[in-house]
Amino acid sequence: MVTSPVVNTYPLSSYTFGTKEPKMEKDTSVADRLARMKVNYMKEGMRTSVEGILLVQEHNHPHILLLQIGNTFCKLPGGRLKPGENEIEGLKRKLTSKLGATVPALVPDWQIGECVAIWWRPNFETIMYPYCPPHITKPKECKKLYLVHLSEREYFAVPKNLKLLAVPLFELYDNVQRYGPVISTIPQQLSRFQFNMIAK
Amino acid sequence: MVTSPVVNTYPLSSYTFGTKEPKMEKDTSVADRLARMKVNYMKEGMRTSVEGILLVQEHNHPHILLLQIGNTFCKLPGGRLKPGENEIEGLKRKLTSKLGATVPALVPDWQIGECVAIWWRPNFETIMYPYCPPHITKPKECKKLYLVHLSEREYFAVPKNLKLLAVPLFELYDNVQRYGPVISTIPQQLSRFQFNMIAK
Repeated sequence: MVTSPVVNTYPLSSYTFGTKEPKMEKDTSVADRLARMKVNYMKEGMRTSVEGILLVQEHNHPHILLLQIGNTFCKLPGGRLKPGENEIEGLKRKLTSKLGATVPALVPDWQIGECVAIWWRPNFETIMYPYCPPHITKPKECKKLYLVHLSEREYFAVPKNLKLLAVPLFELYDNVQRYGPVISTIPQQLSRFQFNMIAK
Repeated sequence: MVTSPVVNTYPLSSYTFGTKEPKMEKDTSVADRLARMKVNYMKEGMRTSVEGILLVQEHNHPHILLLQIGNTFCKLPGGRLKPGENEIEGLKRKLTSKLGATVPALVPDWQIGECVAIWWRPNFETIMYPYCPPHITKPKECKKLYLVHLSEREYFAVPKNLKLLAVPLFELYDNVQRYGPVISTIPQQLSRFQFNMIAK
């Protein structure tokens, strides 16, 4: 029989959460964001962004850590790579910026695992696709989602303006209205993995 | 940089299609299908089914081969394993039954690749999930989707009561109404692969 890749997931309660200084969004509106994207594209070409899927378990069901901004919008921890930056190193840098302690010794030793999805932005618009659409020769952004394998114990420092939520797969599934097309199909992308639920 | 697994895709026109005797559906209604599933579950326990994702390219965009029954319903080639049957061998058997020539020498040497998704049926109902829902200890079916790596030339024999369609990823994406939850999210599951589009 074929064996699925195994992902160890530890209880949410085995992690410690603190806070740190706010990390404000660079843009205050979607229009601002797309305008900044356009300026950056002129300077640096296609934007590559990387995001991390951090898994924990509760009641033997996998949960994903999401950062909530305000009361509604949720995002995965991650961000834009610098031009030429290595994806794995860039994702580690972004995870530390979003969730790492300010004391370097307490920052997790991020273990970046499998790439589970790649999304493409064909135009300076919000819509993205899980393929580069036909006839698009110059996509504006490529976003890659990676599994991040957490150790049994970690300390996360959450910027004061954000909330860190552990959202169960069953809440994400088929919930594009609340989580958008990228996050709501993570359950399908993770379905090929076998979760080894470790009790406390 | 991390490299994505590469999948060679050849033009649809490099494949040859013939027909063979009809392969009728075992059930004439959804109710019949669920009733038969229940009887089989009593005899054999959880049903495991395997389905193949066969890729071709047209206009440099990946297309998936789907079998159409009547004018609306589409399915991936595959089917139910025999109790204890190896998944890979069982999928090869099912692909041959659905798409292989009746002359053994013309049957493709099926190359079964990566498992891309696993779906669970918690009850004797049509709804499936890309995870085993919490509190479900005895799921009724586990369905696994595998990539099938096609060679440059193959001969497919399509049962006379079915049509074989090459459907582009952009047609499947976000089209749950037409293709259902399993097939419509195949584009997301394939997004991590790099398609090497080979011209004729």
